[in-house]
Amino acid sequence: MNFIQQRIIRDGTVKAGGILITDSFLNHQVDIALTDQIGQEFHRRFASCPITRVLTMETSGIAIGYSVAQKFGVPLVYAKKDSSIKLDGDVYAAEVACCPGEEPQQVIVSKKFLTPQDRVLIVDDILANGFSLQCLISLVEAAGATVEGLGIVVEKGFLEGGHRMRNLGYRLESLAIIDAMDADTNQIHFRDPENH
Amino acid sequence: MNFIQQRIIRDGTVKAGGILITDSFLNHQVDIALTDQIGQEFHRRFASCPITRVLTMETSGIAIGYSVAQKFGVPLVYAKKDSSIKLDGDVYAAEVACCPGEEPQQVIVSKKFLTPQDRVLIVDDILANGFSLQCLISLVEAAGATVEGLGIVVEKGFLEGGHRMRNLGYRLESLAIIDAMDADTNQIHFRDPENH
Repeated sequence: MNFIQQRIIRDGTVKAGGILITDSFLNHQVDIALTDQIGQEFHRRFASCPITRVLTMETSGIAIGYSVAQKFGVPLVYAKKDSSIKLDGDVYAAEVACCPGEEPQQVIVSKKFLTPQDRVLIVDDILANGFSLQCLISLVEAAGATVEGLGIVVEKGFLEGGHRMRNLGYRLESLAIIDAMDADTNQIHFRDPENH
Repeated sequence: MNFIQQRIIRDGTVKAGGILITDSFLNHQVDIALTDQIGQEFHRRFASCPITRVLTMETSGIAIGYSVAQKFGVPLVYAKKDSSIKLDGDVYAAEVACCPGEEPQQVIVSKKFLTPQDRVLIVDDILANGFSLQCLISLVEAAGATVEGLGIVVEKGFLEGGHRMRNLGYRLESLAIIDAMDADTNQIHFRDPENH
């Protein structure tokens, strides 16, 4: 098991409905040493890509995005869900729904921070149905920029998101892919990294 | 001028109504080198405090909080505004309004991540009326933990928040305090650091 799988086994909690609680290290309390290691690992995996910006979605992608951007020595940009936010100038906009059937929410990125010359690494904490990634990809494409890759900490392999992204031809690197998990026993089954 | 004041002068934009746009380096695109320097500076200013956790408010405090927590070698915790979020167990809750007259919003922190033994450094990007800081302070106090200090990147000194926090006896360190700014000329007047 790699360092993320080990941490999920140690500190993750499975809840009914395919929910994995990672709030003690990933997305409420942030373990800085772990997040630093996440940044290193994505830097290693995408070392050959000429990344110019790291893009993520607020809120839970920001700490990971910070770490990854730090390793690449490039700026972090986070897409914003709050349309009341104070931005200067024009924006690219896309819509995202957290769950099927939910009312979509507008997400924006200022046009100043995504240009046609940009080669973007998109990162996020969790990949489930892929709606958030699709939204981020559409923002990059609206800017005429290039998606170099997608970096995910925990992919729920029992949902469609990862499959769809790979079918669309994107290079998706997930540090842990969960194929099944059981809320009664708290057991988690990871996919073999050779078998994506 | 210190490094934050210089950056505000270079890249900040003043808008009517006391609005300062810092989205190119602080809270939409994040300049990692600058944010790293912010972390170093807060670490220097609070070096004598036995900080055990850094606390901030989602969203725009997270990158700064990450940098500060990295320098202190402690976890970052960010208070969450989204009550639909997946957390495990009980929470401390407080209410915050962004602006006077606005409907207050509930903010929560899991009880797992603030304990009576904690000595907390609260950080945020902007201090205006202080509602966000008051909310974070009340979460720390609800946990029986100790507020060691408040670290702010940009304080709007022409509003009441900073004055109120200092009057309440908190140690507030603002890297830049703006006493006045003019949307027509984009001029910004900083307070002398000796004159807080």
